[in-house]
Amino acid sequence: MTYTVQVKVMPLKDLLDPQGKAVMGGLQNLGLKDITDVRIGKHIDLQIEASNEEEALASATAAAKKLLANPVMEIFDVTIN
Amino acid sequence: MTYTVQVKVMPLKDLLDPQGKAVMGGLQNLGLKDITDVRIGKHIDLQIEASNEEEALASATAAAKKLLANPVMEIFDVTIN
Repeated sequence: MTYTVQVKVMPLKDLLDPQGKAVMGGLQNLGLKDITDVRIGKHIDLQIEASNEEEALASATAAAKKLLANPVMEIFDVTIN
Repeated sequence: MTYTVQVKVMPLKDLLDPQGKAVMGGLQNLGLKDITDVRIGKHIDLQIEASNEEEALASATAAAKKLLANPVMEIFDVTIN
């Protein structure tokens, strides 16, 4: 069966996110003054052939650890639906 | 009150996603053969000052329409939690 697994990769909370800061500046200039912080990461949709959800989640976690996320700078979160 | 609103921006289904294709090649080379498709988009966390959830969602939707997503190539999805 094919499962769709979503991997969210975000910069670590303690690190500066220059892309987010730049976008926040842009939003302020557009008049959206109520937005006080922006952090930008990646969202990855994986299609995985697996016999059950656990197997699909394990594959996605392996993919995130090996390639999708850089543990020095990012945290990842794997969900299935 | 400060709300955390999540905006997911993904390339449109009908468009080629070269970044996703490249990552899929990398995953295959790493031996993760059960992953059959990869699509990569952005995940944006916004901190929004608003008096209620509806107002926060409206601000996030405005931000996505004006700056975060390019409607020609991307769809976005706004959620609050």
